[in-house]
Amino acid sequence: MVGVRRYRAIVEYDGTDFLGYQIQASGRTVQGELEKSLKQVTRSELRIDAAGRTDAGVHATGQVIAFNGAWKHSLEDLQRALNATLPPDIGISSLDVVKKSFHPRFDALSRCYHYVVINQPWPSILQRRYAHHVKKKLDVEAMQEGSQFLLGSHDFAAFGQPPQGEVTVRHLMQANWSVAGNRLTFEVMANAFLYRMVRRIVGTLLQVGSGELAPIEIKNILETKDLSRSAPPVPAQGLCLVRVVYPDGG
Amino acid sequence: MVGVRRYRAIVEYDGTDFLGYQIQASGRTVQGELEKSLKQVTRSELRIDAAGRTDAGVHATGQVIAFNGAWKHSLEDLQRALNATLPPDIGISSLDVVKKSFHPRFDALSRCYHYVVINQPWPSILQRRYAHHVKKKLDVEAMQEGSQFLLGSHDFAAFGQPPQGEVTVRHLMQANWSVAGNRLTFEVMANAFLYRMVRRIVGTLLQVGSGELAPIEIKNILETKDLSRSAPPVPAQGLCLVRVVYPDGG
Repeated sequence: MVGVRRYRAIVEYDGTDFLGYQIQASGRTVQGELEKSLKQVTRSELRIDAAGRTDAGVHATGQVIAFNGAWKHSLEDLQRALNATLPPDIGISSLDVVKKSFHPRFDALSRCYHYVVINQPWPSILQRRYAHHVKKKLDVEAMQEGSQFLLGSHDFAAFGQPPQGEVTVRHLMQANWSVAGNRLTFEVMANAFLYRMVRRIVGTLLQVGSGELAPIEIKNILETKDLSRSAPPVPAQGLCLVRVVYPDGG
Repeated sequence: MVGVRRYRAIVEYDGTDFLGYQIQASGRTVQGELEKSLKQVTRSELRIDAAGRTDAGVHATGQVIAFNGAWKHSLEDLQRALNATLPPDIGISSLDVVKKSFHPRFDALSRCYHYVVINQPWPSILQRRYAHHVKKKLDVEAMQEGSQFLLGSHDFAAFGQPPQGEVTVRHLMQANWSVAGNRLTFEVMANAFLYRMVRRIVGTLLQVGSGELAPIEIKNILETKDLSRSAPPVPAQGLCLVRVVYPDGG
């Protein structure tokens, strides 16, 4: 007899061919595929909780999920069985047992996303699934300067809508552009994000990079708390959920 | 009246959904798509020459092609028109005018390929289209040691068949493994390569990395000139033609 335990998994996925993380009445979703695979492996219907509900087209290397289950073999066997039944665009990169009360969303201290921009005249064919292409030469220093106004606790209503409830205050711990050749990566970490907040922030910072806005305008837009003042969200394919941080460091 | 000129282009492609570079009686090929796009843009049937005929599934960031054409607008306009008509998995990253006698294959001094291996227990989802996954921990130092026996001029009959003719001597100028986390990249440059030579070399070096072969066996296998002694070719998706070098530096 095997007791029920709570499992936590780190999940990677290529968002290109999904309608998003969260299960829907119809259409291919990450959660739907994970639950199908879990049912096949454990022979029971398991409910999965996740750290974040990524949008259609958004990727993850560090999504975190949790589920209850009774599995009599090793953790490594469970991980192998899940990876063997999952489609090629989803994988489990880590699996452990956690306390029964663990919830990947409510227990998370912070989330880290990367947004990748390829900044060159012609599209990069091999990076097109995982990056946003911008032809016009961007001023990355100005983008970096603008992004610093977002650090700390602010009401981010100008950059996103709350997924539930009305609280729009979030705490941003990191907002940094790094450059490798023509590849620009925005690394952003916060306790939590509003709906499409990263993609709206990047869109507005790209307006700074192209000279349409001065860096200080990021501060001014933030203070308006008016969603219509920020840029529309940049395309989903540049975005990736890379890490979720918990009190136990997992 | 515009005279006929000879154009050279650097072509990028994602090999995943192609039967290879070279046009075939049926099936999707890079050459076929390039000729279709050229016909649409220039309204004439143009014959394309290429530096190398990459296999099905092999990628390129630096394939070089050449064609004759009479184009009355700017080079940038031609590049833009070609990119606008090409499918999303092919792009022209550079275009220039060269002397009439230029041939991308016969004039090439050397070719450089990269082969990417992801070395970790679980597959990397986001790199699965562009890398070969090896679960077992590899000894990269041994692989590097083994690869050094390939440098210089040798008869490489043990590692590939000549695409035409019988000469199997090639000159290897570079063979180097670099490591970035779990990502191993083999950078190899030669005046030219035999059929599937890079993938057979990598396959044999992976046997060195997993401890099946001592590094010195690379030298011994090379000296046998016997194709049955090298490992089978590793999968195509890890391979990318990154650069072709010409006397003019282009």
